[in-house]
This record gives sequence, C-alpha cells and structure tokens, in this order.
Amino acid sequence: MPAKNAFYAQSGGVTAVINASACGVIETARQHKDKIANVYAGRNGIIGALTEDLIDTSQESDDDIAALRYTPAGAFGSCRYKLKSLEANRREYERLIEVFKAHNIGYFFYNGGGDSADTCYKVSQLSETLGYPVQAIHVPKTVDNDLPITDNCPGFGSVAKYIATSALEASFDVRSMAKTSTKLFVLEVMGRHAGWIAAAGGLIDDHGIPVLVLFPEIEFDQDRFMAKVKAMVEQHGYCTVVVSEGCHWPDGRFLAEQGTKDAFGHAQLGGAAPVVANMVKEALGYKFHWAVADYLQRAARHLASKTDVEQAYATGKAGVEFALAGHNAIMPTIKRVSSDPYRWEVGEAPLSEVANVEKFMPREFITEDGFGITAACKEYLLPLIQGEDYPPFTNGLPRFVTLKNAAVEKKLAAFEL
Amino acid sequence: MPAKNAFYAQSGGVTAVINASACGVIETARQHKDKIANVYAGRNGIIGALTEDLIDTSQESDDDIAALRYTPAGAFGSCRYKLKSLEANRREYERLIEVFKAHNIGYFFYNGGGDSADTCYKVSQLSETLGYPVQAIHVPKTVDNDLPITDNCPGFGSVAKYIATSALEASFDVRSMAKTSTKLFVLEVMGRHAGWIAAAGGLIDDHGIPVLVLFPEIEFDQDRFMAKVKAMVEQHGYCTVVVSEGCHWPDGRFLAEQGTKDAFGHAQLGGAAPVVANMVKEALGYKFHWAVADYLQRAARHLASKTDVEQAYATGKAGVEFALAGHNAIMPTIKRVSSDPYRWEVGEAPLSEVANVEKFMPREFITEDGFGITAACKEYLLPLIQGEDYPPFTNGLPRFVTLKNAAVEKKLAAFEL
Repeated sequence: MPAKNAFYAQSGGVTAVINASACGVIETARQHKDKIANVYAGRNGIIGALTEDLIDTSQESDDDIAALRYTPAGAFGSCRYKLKSLEANRREYERLIEVFKAHNIGYFFYNGGGDSADTCYKVSQLSETLGYPVQAIHVPKTVDNDLPITDNCPGFGSVAKYIATSALEASFDVRSMAKTSTKLFVLEVMGRHAGWIAAAGGLIDDHGIPVLVLFPEIEFDQDRFMAKVKAMVEQHGYCTVVVSEGCHWPDGRFLAEQGTKDAFGHAQLGGAAPVVANMVKEALGYKFHWAVADYLQRAARHLASKTDVEQAYATGKAGVEFALAGHNAIMPTIKRVSSDPYRWEVGEAPLSEVANVEKFMPREFITEDGFGITAACKEYLLPLIQGEDYPPFTNGLPRFVTLKNAAVEKKLAAFEL
Repeated sequence: MPAKNAFYAQSGGVTAVINASACGVIETARQHKDKIANVYAGRNGIIGALTEDLIDTSQESDDDIAALRYTPAGAFGSCRYKLKSLEANRREYERLIEVFKAHNIGYFFYNGGGDSADTCYKVSQLSETLGYPVQAIHVPKTVDNDLPITDNCPGFGSVAKYIATSALEASFDVRSMAKTSTKLFVLEVMGRHAGWIAAAGGLIDDHGIPVLVLFPEIEFDQDRFMAKVKAMVEQHGYCTVVVSEGCHWPDGRFLAEQGTKDAFGHAQLGGAAPVVANMVKEALGYKFHWAVADYLQRAARHLASKTDVEQAYATGKAGVEFALAGHNAIMPTIKRVSSDPYRWEVGEAPLSEVANVEKFMPREFITEDGFGITAACKEYLLPLIQGEDYPPFTNGLPRFVTLKNAAVEKKLAAFEL
C-alpha cells in the first residue's frame, strides 16, 4: 500500500502534556515513513482541517519535535469546536473528506477529551457513510480525568501533582501565619463536573494538613461545612479548603454564581474561592487568603508528573501503532496492572463506548462526611503523580519550544465555517 | 566571655526561603558553641519572646535543620505584630529584657521585612536605653523586594521565578486557545506598594509573549490600557496581563475595591484580576481567564531560585558571623558586584537606615508607556531567578520537614499581650 499522510490535531482545553502526545505521534510516524509519508497538523484543531489550514510538521527538526515532550499547551493551536451530527451538518463532513483527499490523508489522530472523542468517532464512520477510507484514532487528553474505560487520562496526573504540591506549600504558609493572621486558605481548582482535581488536594492530609475538599459530586451543605471548618481551626489553628469550580448548591447553582453586581449593575463574575472564603469570614470571623489557580494548574509543565508525561507520550505512540495495525474508531487507554508497585500498560477502547460518557468520582473515593478522600482514592491517585520530569531551564526560565508551524500549500477553495 | 544563647524569630509574611535563612542562622551558630550555647526560636515570632514561648532548637537533629533549606514558610511560626516605640509601650520592652535575662539571651536575630527591621532596631537600642546588653541583627526577608540599601531581598528571587514561569506557561495555554476561545489571561500577583513581583511577569516578553504589566507605581489609566490590550490582541491574537494587587486608580482606590455588594448587601472582596478581566470583556468582548496566585507564589518552594536560596542562607549565616564579630543594629545585605556574569557578596547596612524605608521600582525600570519593563530592569531581575534548587520528592510530593518545636521550660510569670 503506498504511503498516506496523517492528520493530527489538538482539541479543547490544553494541558501540560498534550504536546508530549503530539511528540509521541510525530516521532512514531517518522519511524514509519513507508506507511505515513508526513504528519499534517491542524492549525487550531479541527478548524485547521475544515479551512485547509494545515501545518507541515516535516519542516520541524527532530530536536524541536523532541522538545514538545517538555513544552506545555498546544503547539499547533487548539479549538473549542464540536462537529454536529452527519445529518445536521453534512457539509462539514464532506469538506473534511475533500481536504483529506486533496492531501492524501489516510490517518486521523485527534487529541482531546470527551467532546473530541465524539468528533473522532464521527470521522471514523466516514469510510462507511461517505465512502472515504480514513482510520480515526482518538488520543486521550484531559485534565479533568473524566474519560471512561481508561484508568486515567494523560494531563490529569500533572495537574494533580501541581494542586497537591501547591496546596501543601500554601498550607505550610497559613500554618506559619495562623497565630495572629490568616487561619483559612481556600484554593479553587478546575473540574466543573468531576472532582478528580479537587480530590488531589485531599492527598495533603497525609502530610499533617487539616484539609477539606468541596467536590462537584457532593451538594454543598453550608452548615455542615462551617461546623467542619470551625472544628479544624479549633483543633489545628488553621484549615485549608480545596474547592472545585463545580461545587454547587442543592438547586444546582454554582457557588461561584453569587448573583452579585458591580458598581455599574453588571453581573460580577467571581470564583468559588472568594465566595467560600467570605462565607467563612462572615460566619466565623477567620482572616483568610484565597487563590484561583486557573490556567496555572493545567499549564504547569515545570511540575509535571513523570508518570503522566510517559503516559501522554505512550498513548500518542500507541495511536500511530494501532493505526498502522489497521485499527479504526478506537482510543488507546491506560490499563492499571497494579497500584503498588504501580504498573500500567496501554490498552484500547472502542470510541462508540468513549464518546460523550463522563466518568465521575465514585462515591467510595469520597469520605462518608463528603469533605475528604478515602484510602481507596489515595491508592488510585498516588501512582499518577509519581516522579518529576523537569523541563530544561535557560537563564532562569523553562526553555520551551515554539514551532515554525509552516503552512501546507492550499489546493482548495476557501471554506466558510 | 561565657557563651550566651541566641534568640531567632520569623516575622511578617513568610516566603519560600525564609527557612533557608533560619538554616543559615542555626547551622552557623552550631559551629560556634563556645560563644552561642543554643538558639531559642520564638514560637510565632516576637510573640514567642513576649510570652516566653521559646522553642529549643537544640532538640532538632542536624538533618532536620538542614531540611529547613528546602522547606517553605516559617518553621517556627511567624506573626504580624509590631512593637510600639519605647515611650508608647515600655512594658513590652521590659518584658523582652526579663525574658532575655531569664534565658541568658545575648543575641537577637530577627528575620523579616521593613516593619521587622524597625522592631529589630528598637531591640538593638535596649543596651543603651534599658541597660541590657543584646546584639540585634536583622536578617532580611520579603517577597516584596522593598527593603532599601540591599540590592535585593531574599524571598523575592523565588517568587519572581515562579511568577515569570507561571505567566510563561499560562501564556502558552492562552495562545493555544485564542482562535476560538480565551484571548486574554490575567494573572494577579502580590505587591501592594512596590511592583517588583509584577515586573517579573514582564520578563516573558523576551519569550515572544505579548504581555502588559500593571504596576502599583503607575496610576491606572483605563483608556490607555484598553487601547494596549486591543492592539496586542489584534496583532498577536491574544494577550497576557500581569496585575499587581496594588494597582490603583488615580484617586488611590485599589482596582480590587469595586464597591460591589453580595446578595446580602455585604461588601464583596474580589481581586484585581477579575476586575481587569471583566473590564476588558465589557469594552472589547474578549473571552478571558484569570488567576490569583496569592500564597501559591510565595510558598512555591518547588520552583525556588537557586540564587535566592543561596542568598537566604548566606544572610542568615552572615547575621551570626556579624554578631560574633561584635556588630549590633545592622542587617546583612546583598551587594551586587556585577550583573553579567552575576556576582554578589554579603555587605551590611545600619538598621537606622533600613527601618521603615520602602524601595519602589525606579521609573527607569518601567517602560515609558507604563505597561512593561525596560532592558535595565531585565538586567536587574534576571540574575535573581537563576538556577533551580528542587526539594526532594517522596511518593509524588515534596518532602518538607516539620520540626518538633519542643518548648523551653518557662521560668517567668505569664504575660498578657
């Protein structure tokens, strides 16, 4: 079979290690030039495919591709753009095929989360429905750790390590200050629906820190929370709270939606952390500090988990190997063989079972009172944050790569999104 | 001269490296047991001296004292408590002398910022004014970098490295997302009066990032800021803003004080970052993300600057050496010998010239338009963030030390603060 080209794109929110998956895809493809002539990356995700805005990765040096392994965020640009169903938007699928044909693309690697798995699944069906042969492989990526079947998602381990480390460090700080000043530290973390990242904050209780976790999976109960904070401060002198951005009231409203207005009458967008902090101040009078980590947590390549980097690379590599072995409509997964010592291998899952399924924290990973994590949860989490994998630093700052991202010459008429 | 004991205390907001100074003090004192019999640490700063709540550091192993070098925050507890003048509160000074006498304390090492230098200076005068011989040495510490005479303050280099690295990583993230999603990222940093920390965020423009810095030294001009943001987003597709918590309007009001009320009519405490982000959204419609680093930045020992750790240790060590050489009422300083290559040595400054003086960013370190840093500023900042000094990690998290902090037996009646 003559060689075909591959299309690779990054989708949705980026992570500290999504480029490590890109590195795995491209380096592995380069080892099989007899079958994969070139990897074209979509500039800004699937939009690059639709607009025929392709990046010629063959123009990047081996060194620069290797540097993707330690460079955070999406080197080719990502996007938030979900393909509708074939019935609802046949035009876009026909355009994809037109672009694939024009550039001899036979492999489609899509690096993203749940929505992206759905897009990838739809593309995988193009062979059948529109008669164009393409093998579509979804490479898993999400800080939220909410993809099904796979034991964990590349991207999560690093944010978990960052949040646990940051919460530990800040807790040492508040412990120092508690006698005459700050008694409460509130750290807001990502995870609108699933509390995996917040759970990582719970790991610090094994380091002697009084910590409460507020999960999106548990309805917020203000009275019980206040009683917990009070008890912890009375016992330890201080308390750390890790609150998920998805923490919500029984009626579904997020804590962050306070219905507050600014001086001009506009709705004030705050975070959950200041809301929780002010609530405690109001009820108990404790001086507080709060932090919202936001992008810092998912971009923090300087503190990536070595395990996570290895798994991100491995799923990218496996994606290419599965494709070369003729697979279609699948996602490489991480299969846990054992927790202690931690051993894992790459498996695969059919995209039909991955697309649009969210994996939440199981109830048995959350303590009975709803404010902490159980031993089973720690056994699950700890292997994922093992090992450090520091990027090189030059002149005091990480030396990340910015690729040339040269465009492939267009062959088609323009396409309106 | 028979050996005397030393008193050491940590004061004010803690840092990632204040314990490295403690390590320098205690390790150096241990090498001179003929002159310094023991180091008593104040539990929670000067409060520990006033309440005779002293920690016997001789009960800590050499290994645990060595581990202070890589443990963030204040190992003995800090406090926010400023001694009034001798005239205004003679009772507290007399109590200090009573405690010093009871525990044979002849050396006073106070590890803090500007307010603490003032306290230390007052204690240094006790020999003359109250007839008790004590040598008082101030060991500099502040993330704000606002102490005079010294070229820089231990604590600052690490927070600068953390902010520059975090801003760089998050900027790679927003650059990835900008096509269809986030175009503006706002990072709020510490520094109520002096913009040194914010300035560190400006270092990333040498890494190709369009970044604007909002300093407390420059009155906020909303129209000019908006024009800058617009121009940057139009040119680069995105923009990063690093805003100091001390950024304020021409009338002195902090940006963070928006006069907003929550649902119960209480004043809403937010940060400067959400205010700036919402302001841009309102004017230009850009989707944004914002982060407030708060304690994460000053506790981030995992990303400490090696230069900073070395200087923190060196000033602690020098403090003891100056005391043994008979000095009083001084602060060890960092003297810059050259910037490139960076060379420094320890000097000393009289406390009379340090106490209550704040050092702001010189105007020539800020670009003419007020939104960036100059080449001179970069030449000043870059040496301070050089080198990495990672703490050891065990099981995925940093292995920090928590000391035993055993109390010295009390000899005096209780004292009401």
